[in-house]
Amino acid sequence: MTYYLPQGFRFAGVSAAIKKKPGTKDIAVIVSDVPAVAAGVYTQNQVVAAPVVLCRSRTPLSTARAVVVNSGNANACTGARGDADARRMCEVLAAALDDHAAGSAGDGVNAEQALVMSTGVIGHFLPMEKIEAGIGQAVGCLAAGERAFLDAADAIMTTDAARKVTTRRAELGGKVIHIAGMAKGAGMIGPNMATMLCCVTTDAKLTAEQAQRLLTSAANKSFNNISVEGHTSTNDTMLLLANGCSGGTELTGNEEAQFADHLEAMCIELAKQIPADGEGSAHLIEVSVRGAQNDSDARQISHAVASSNLVKTAVHGGDPNWGRIVSAAGYAGPPIETTMLSLKVNGIELFAAGEPVAFDAKLASASIRQNHSTIIELTVGSGAGTCTHWTSDLGVDYVRFNSEYTT
Amino acid sequence: MTYYLPQGFRFAGVSAAIKKKPGTKDIAVIVSDVPAVAAGVYTQNQVVAAPVVLCRSRTPLSTARAVVVNSGNANACTGARGDADARRMCEVLAAALDDHAAGSAGDGVNAEQALVMSTGVIGHFLPMEKIEAGIGQAVGCLAAGERAFLDAADAIMTTDAARKVTTRRAELGGKVIHIAGMAKGAGMIGPNMATMLCCVTTDAKLTAEQAQRLLTSAANKSFNNISVEGHTSTNDTMLLLANGCSGGTELTGNEEAQFADHLEAMCIELAKQIPADGEGSAHLIEVSVRGAQNDSDARQISHAVASSNLVKTAVHGGDPNWGRIVSAAGYAGPPIETTMLSLKVNGIELFAAGEPVAFDAKLASASIRQNHSTIIELTVGSGAGTCTHWTSDLGVDYVRFNSEYTT
Repeated sequence: MTYYLPQGFRFAGVSAAIKKKPGTKDIAVIVSDVPAVAAGVYTQNQVVAAPVVLCRSRTPLSTARAVVVNSGNANACTGARGDADARRMCEVLAAALDDHAAGSAGDGVNAEQALVMSTGVIGHFLPMEKIEAGIGQAVGCLAAGERAFLDAADAIMTTDAARKVTTRRAELGGKVIHIAGMAKGAGMIGPNMATMLCCVTTDAKLTAEQAQRLLTSAANKSFNNISVEGHTSTNDTMLLLANGCSGGTELTGNEEAQFADHLEAMCIELAKQIPADGEGSAHLIEVSVRGAQNDSDARQISHAVASSNLVKTAVHGGDPNWGRIVSAAGYAGPPIETTMLSLKVNGIELFAAGEPVAFDAKLASASIRQNHSTIIELTVGSGAGTCTHWTSDLGVDYVRFNSEYTT
Repeated sequence: MTYYLPQGFRFAGVSAAIKKKPGTKDIAVIVSDVPAVAAGVYTQNQVVAAPVVLCRSRTPLSTARAVVVNSGNANACTGARGDADARRMCEVLAAALDDHAAGSAGDGVNAEQALVMSTGVIGHFLPMEKIEAGIGQAVGCLAAGERAFLDAADAIMTTDAARKVTTRRAELGGKVIHIAGMAKGAGMIGPNMATMLCCVTTDAKLTAEQAQRLLTSAANKSFNNISVEGHTSTNDTMLLLANGCSGGTELTGNEEAQFADHLEAMCIELAKQIPADGEGSAHLIEVSVRGAQNDSDARQISHAVASSNLVKTAVHGGDPNWGRIVSAAGYAGPPIETTMLSLKVNGIELFAAGEPVAFDAKLASASIRQNHSTIIELTVGSGAGTCTHWTSDLGVDYVRFNSEYTT
């Protein structure tokens, strides 16, 4: 597999013994060699972790230099001390980068140019001694290559079974640019393991305002449309860093639109990996709604269907149970034209124009059982509104995983 | 156990072979010997079953005489034929009542004085031959006693493990009145088994407008605040019939207020029996929110906590996982004062004034494991808004039940 990494970025992932399992990576550092613009999209939860408060106050930013991430502890519900710890992580990172650059031509990095993300247990103070040592260690092994990039991606994981990365190379207006994304998340699971994190780096040149706008738009088509169990965590954070090292001026017009398409496609690719990696999950479920009065209505309907335990258990059991899907659409809230309600599962029509359709139940069931992805297509009227959500199915293993742990 | 049944009502429950299991009761009839006022509260789902459409168009009603209920088939998503079948059930009921009264002084009952409820499989036409025969049979064995009341309560059940009834006698302004309620529901479960149904009969004297107002208010404190998996069915129906047979004039002022208190308490009692009877459920979970800016905000928050799979699995596992509860409140939507956030589980303080509290985790866990009900008390600010929701926990058996069936 070839990874297309952006120019002017270095990565590192190390073990600082924050997580219990010895040798597991739990500190990641991402550095841009020149000031980069940074944009952020954050959790909608009102109970937010200290690193989210800090990043929110700093983005959009035109002079970002570095991001530090720790896994194993979310630094959430930790009050004033948690805020101080998040700031301290940035200070330690800036100082370590300065130290490391001493003697070289490295310009100074100050703490306000750093961003921070945390994920893991809620309600415990960070083990700052370990974290500070880990940051120092990570800065010492920063590198531009694929190995360092994957180390960083590994270090942000918690209960993820699989690493989540995607990279891309594109030619925009004659210049070659690169985009690299890493994400983590597999449901908000016990013990209090929260959080979706995503960090996208690119050497394309963007203004801070532009980066923010493009990231927000991509988030609304990707990470904002996935759920494992619908629990918005206290720590969800998505960052985009663009350092312009591909050269030239800021992307505009058609080039910006092409970049936006790449960013959105990559975010969807990363986002879908999260419910696909849900605990106890055997299926990724894709719920596409069309015909709503507008996109916002479509979003509410696709969200209601994707959040239904009954839909999720039916898919798990290979049951083409159209009644559960149609009735979930009915209680979502936005108006639906019941005489236009139509439903396909994996391309098989189960309900059309408001009436059940005779279908081969064995064939439909086999189609669900034999595919890792189940595609639900729902038409709710004649409007132009569309939205797609992704979720995982709900199996016995999910419940076992989430109920058999005791704090 | 003593049942306090209202005067002037007769009940019946018989087997019409709509359900597969031989001898299982599946047709209930409830008759008032004199015209009664009838009020209804119905599902919020836009996809509604034919009997809901019919009842909605008839209530509030001042001249109701009878209700027929079938279980085993929901008559939902059945189009024009379903509407005709629902009307036909009322016609057959009225005719059977007339036939049966022939020779006695019985006044004529017309079809517009009848109401109908259905619960069971979605998307199949009613077996009208069986249903018509069943209605005739039920009318033949109508009786005023406890046995007939319980037969009717049994006939409305689908996957319920336990019969759900409550009755009460009260003295209001010197007159003795009786109220009797029956309900069914245990989650919306496979194969498409939908629906909460509730029918309350009383010999108190009310106007139709008054009955509607009191029933709506009671529903908002009871049946509208329960969930097993948050799936609003196509058939949910709650009816109140008041025939005034206790004598005197319509209840007013203090007497009305007392009646409203009794009705609300009885509805809460019945409503709580539904999540307590959820499939695979070991715990009834009560979520009480206070301190919200208003009751509507409190309702959104208690609903979000009660709907969280993570909260439901934590309780199932005996885990006092405050992070899941607090973060669910945080994403509910309404404003919360994070520095006032406090949480008790079964009276044990886990979180206070926005900070975790040191507590005996073993004791808290034992308290959850050893009680059938888990009480979650959440303070979200200094406002006057309060709301209580009830739900079931989420265990492996629930998922097994809902995923291992194939249509």
